[in-house]
Amino acid sequence: MKRLFGGIEAGGTKFVCVVGSGPNDIVEEIRFPTTQAAEETIRRAIAFFAPYIHNANLTAIGIATFGPVDLNPVSPTYGCITTTPKPGWSQVDLRGIVKRALDLPVAFETDVNAAAFGEYYWTPANRCLDPFVYITIGTGIGVGVLVNGRPVHGLVHPEAGHFSIPHDKEMDPFTGICPYHKDCLEGLASGPAMTERWGQDVKTLPDSHPAWELEAEYIALALVNLTYAYSPQRIVLGGGVSLHPGLHKSVRQKVQQILNGYIQSPVVLEKIDEYIVPPTLGNRSGVLGAIAMAIDLVDAR
Amino acid sequence: MKRLFGGIEAGGTKFVCVVGSGPNDIVEEIRFPTTQAAEETIRRAIAFFAPYIHNANLTAIGIATFGPVDLNPVSPTYGCITTTPKPGWSQVDLRGIVKRALDLPVAFETDVNAAAFGEYYWTPANRCLDPFVYITIGTGIGVGVLVNGRPVHGLVHPEAGHFSIPHDKEMDPFTGICPYHKDCLEGLASGPAMTERWGQDVKTLPDSHPAWELEAEYIALALVNLTYAYSPQRIVLGGGVSLHPGLHKSVRQKVQQILNGYIQSPVVLEKIDEYIVPPTLGNRSGVLGAIAMAIDLVDAR
Repeated sequence: MKRLFGGIEAGGTKFVCVVGSGPNDIVEEIRFPTTQAAEETIRRAIAFFAPYIHNANLTAIGIATFGPVDLNPVSPTYGCITTTPKPGWSQVDLRGIVKRALDLPVAFETDVNAAAFGEYYWTPANRCLDPFVYITIGTGIGVGVLVNGRPVHGLVHPEAGHFSIPHDKEMDPFTGICPYHKDCLEGLASGPAMTERWGQDVKTLPDSHPAWELEAEYIALALVNLTYAYSPQRIVLGGGVSLHPGLHKSVRQKVQQILNGYIQSPVVLEKIDEYIVPPTLGNRSGVLGAIAMAIDLVDAR
Repeated sequence: MKRLFGGIEAGGTKFVCVVGSGPNDIVEEIRFPTTQAAEETIRRAIAFFAPYIHNANLTAIGIATFGPVDLNPVSPTYGCITTTPKPGWSQVDLRGIVKRALDLPVAFETDVNAAAFGEYYWTPANRCLDPFVYITIGTGIGVGVLVNGRPVHGLVHPEAGHFSIPHDKEMDPFTGICPYHKDCLEGLASGPAMTERWGQDVKTLPDSHPAWELEAEYIALALVNLTYAYSPQRIVLGGGVSLHPGLHKSVRQKVQQILNGYIQSPVVLEKIDEYIVPPTLGNRSGVLGAIAMAIDLVDAR
């Protein structure tokens, strides 16, 4: 019997759960809201997978979750959401509840590290690239990083969405919306920051609106700092805001302008289209990354 | 016969060469200026090591060099300085010249990655820390990073000295001195930037001078961005400027202020003295890192 795997993308607003063996073999998929009743939400995911344990060869589960989370396997709170501002979700043992209910191997990662792993694992052209960076610009800004093909963990996990970046208050007097840092990257450049700055939903801002020039500038500053921090071989730029027509092109130009020839690599100087790329998996990097982690977990044993 | 190792720290202004087996066993040391005659400078290093090949058990050499350099072992220019503004040193095959002359295994790294490795290798308390970051604030600003105990390489190598950071031009109208980026981190906060901003040698700025408050702020912004990028378990803050009395303390306070509780780790929240630390090896992190790399190179075979 073919092996099947479960993937959970636990997002701040919705859960996406899939059963399958890869991008071209998704057997079933379900989406439901992330409510304030954390355990009830998790139980819906469990109920979705349960039939596959008895009637099919469900082998392992991968969880790609919003955070911050505890990724340290020897910590007593491993697999928990830690101190999220999201009501009902602080100190929730997300991995433990799934593990105990389904009694399968469960891989556990941040949503963005999992998305990085998904893009890396399922796209043959990405497999040799080290380091490998994924950044999503949407409701929040998150960054996932692989070094040697493995997600980076440390004290916690990368949180480069909160980079301190230059903010020219004369050009952009908006004070920023990050509850911790006001005008950090996420505070200036997330979707909700754009909506608040311009007084209209980010989705309604026309192509000609100056919002997009400014947005490209902030994203470029983030990508420049990621370039200096990691010297990655590729940066995947995803998330809802990144889908705006022309934004990728504009970001690439500004990255080259800001670097100003300092990084003497043909990839940056001549092949920037191959350096900053959209996700191969569209908006499914996270959940397909969860599947990839589940496969990797059992195959590495 | 006891194994001996050679370490070369190739700096922008001077070469430091040592023969020994570790921090407490340095047999001989020599320092000489890095002149514009690159090959002649390298030959002085070779002449220093040569007697140890015939008369002692010199086993391998480690080179910790200024950059940018080519660290890719399968590249035709592996081991070369690439496009440095330093006259006479562009496209110089530093590793190749040493390797051909001495016919020994030669490890090759950036000065800052080597310094990170030195601090990690020779300090037992650092050995379990991952990621591990070293930053030096001096003539330039450089950052070395270990993930899983290995230096991070990518397109090139980390260049976080050139981070884009907030620059409040009202508070600090200085335009910055980086030839590539003007007011990047190095352009604002290196020793020469301080000297030029305040019109007096950085070494003569008294403790009470506002220069130090501003400097602590810029260094803190850098450390905050390194924290968000890597989530390191420790940051070693070294270099001449970092030796100023009280600077470490001031930087630690500002890092906590800027993070503002976002990183929920007791190391950052309660034990910041163990998170941001001075180098254990003083100003010898680089050359002792070169020795450590040489040992590691032969022991890993």
